[in-house]
Amino acid sequence: MKQVVLRNYPRGAPSAGDFAVETAEMPEPSTGEVLLKTYWLSLDPLIRFSLDERRLTGRAQVRPGEVLYGGAVSRIEASNVAAFSVGDWVEGRTGWREFAAVDPAVVPLRKIDAGAAPPSAALGLLGMPGQTAHACMIEVGRVTTGETVVISAAAGAVGTIAGQIGKILGARVVGIAGGPEKCRAVEALGFDVCVDYRASDYADQLAAACPGGIDVYIENVGGAVTQAVLPLLKYQARMPVCGFIAYYGMGLEGPGPDRLPGFMRTIMSKGLEVRGFGGALVAGPDALDNLARWHGQGKIRLAETVVEGLDEAPAAFAGIFSGNANVGKLVVRVAAE
Amino acid sequence: MKQVVLRNYPRGAPSAGDFAVETAEMPEPSTGEVLLKTYWLSLDPLIRFSLDERRLTGRAQVRPGEVLYGGAVSRIEASNVAAFSVGDWVEGRTGWREFAAVDPAVVPLRKIDAGAAPPSAALGLLGMPGQTAHACMIEVGRVTTGETVVISAAAGAVGTIAGQIGKILGARVVGIAGGPEKCRAVEALGFDVCVDYRASDYADQLAAACPGGIDVYIENVGGAVTQAVLPLLKYQARMPVCGFIAYYGMGLEGPGPDRLPGFMRTIMSKGLEVRGFGGALVAGPDALDNLARWHGQGKIRLAETVVEGLDEAPAAFAGIFSGNANVGKLVVRVAAE
Repeated sequence: MKQVVLRNYPRGAPSAGDFAVETAEMPEPSTGEVLLKTYWLSLDPLIRFSLDERRLTGRAQVRPGEVLYGGAVSRIEASNVAAFSVGDWVEGRTGWREFAAVDPAVVPLRKIDAGAAPPSAALGLLGMPGQTAHACMIEVGRVTTGETVVISAAAGAVGTIAGQIGKILGARVVGIAGGPEKCRAVEALGFDVCVDYRASDYADQLAAACPGGIDVYIENVGGAVTQAVLPLLKYQARMPVCGFIAYYGMGLEGPGPDRLPGFMRTIMSKGLEVRGFGGALVAGPDALDNLARWHGQGKIRLAETVVEGLDEAPAAFAGIFSGNANVGKLVVRVAAE
Repeated sequence: MKQVVLRNYPRGAPSAGDFAVETAEMPEPSTGEVLLKTYWLSLDPLIRFSLDERRLTGRAQVRPGEVLYGGAVSRIEASNVAAFSVGDWVEGRTGWREFAAVDPAVVPLRKIDAGAAPPSAALGLLGMPGQTAHACMIEVGRVTTGETVVISAAAGAVGTIAGQIGKILGARVVGIAGGPEKCRAVEALGFDVCVDYRASDYADQLAAACPGGIDVYIENVGGAVTQAVLPLLKYQARMPVCGFIAYYGMGLEGPGPDRLPGFMRTIMSKGLEVRGFGGALVAGPDALDNLARWHGQGKIRLAETVVEGLDEAPAAFAGIFSGNANVGKLVVRVAAE
């Protein structure tokens, strides 16, 4: 079977050459383990944090030669665990490999109702990106009717869901994405307008899209994209921090100048509320139920880009950091259902 | 009469030479104006914002040749306004001058009950610093019994009050100040411990003072002082931003490296809540009443450093930015009561 390992720690943005696809022995499930066949892999920018040589967060770390980890959807092929039966669909961090033998007491597995939505939705709308979007818009952002919400990385897994939640909540929803093609896709999902951050007049376009200022800014990006947002924030605006892809792989410090003084000045002078998403704990216990209900009612559409085959996973993962053209959740089809 | 004008825009930290003490005509109150005699001037780091050539906030700006502004306590010498009588004590932004003729409809004047506390308290505990400390500890910080609160610029006008509020709320209160003398003064106000940020083992001392981590960090400083705080913040800690004196006069960007990536990472990974004080509006309507009551009950002591005479105001103001030795609210006695 195939698996993907880390060849060397990426420097800054990952490239496909930082990873290697290799052949490994088929695993055998021991007592207390299940044998999983992988169908879908989640390509998520957060995986970047597990690839830092210097450990900066509590997140698990992958060393050169080790298999990569991220969300995956699998089916039970054989089971030595009473709670799991052959044929069950499950989601868990079971590794970038075609088959895995895992102990569910060590690697938590979440059962999926494959009848309610396609199994891959467990990596997007009905998984971590959905919980993140729910938390950022509702629990942290407290978005209400008539407010103006700006969402960066609007075409991303979280952004596409957050914007659709914003429309359900009755807000004016402005997206920010890279390139006219992505912007059109974002607008097709119901965003009121999407601004292209690559346009030479990006800051002016953004200001024109938010004539009354911004009540809530969903931060997914950081860097220059965000610098244009800050002057438009209203007094006591909220800024849920759900990601900051511009800084991933940068460590704790980037090249100067130091933009922290200006950010602190904005926070203080505007009475800004900046709050980190801080993991799925912040999402209410009913987040996944809400999302499944909205999906069932046709109020939220699944947005997904599919990469075919484990061999393509390294290049597709690297593409996230160079602003590839995918819209919605980026997943790898490892095996056909 | 004497007044203090801006000679030139300060570059970075102000120096006494950026200001000039000059003689001016005694003002005459017109119709609708009162004549004020200044007794006390507030020396506040926020005044620095009015001295930037480039206007970065909505704050009023002083240009070279113009009189400086900040809080001042005065007494009515003559009145052409029914609401104000000769002998009334008032607080308002009436300028760094011995006498002023002002229209209270243009320059708001707040009457002071000189029987409840010394008139200068209207510039500290019973004024803007008190409201700021109240808002940062209660409305924004939501400090509760048993929590660990760290307060930077603990010896400052806001810090001395915030720490005493923390003890009233039942929190463990850790101060950060510059030098052993200031730290002893801070501890004498009831802080559990005060850590000297100039000590070579400052970060270790701070960690030792907060063995269970930090629930709330009252940010008054920024820069290296804050960098040592961030790793100690607990999951979902709160960080009211009440000032950041390390960055004043720096504009929106400081010399590199860029520390914003590390700050964003801390915000996201810890689910941190960072919220700007954003002006007195955030303080509850009962903030000044609470502070006056606590003062009357002997639960909060006035901490004040007095500079004698308007001639000394420029050097004393500049001293704020070089970490002078004053403890509590820094005021200038312009005239003896």
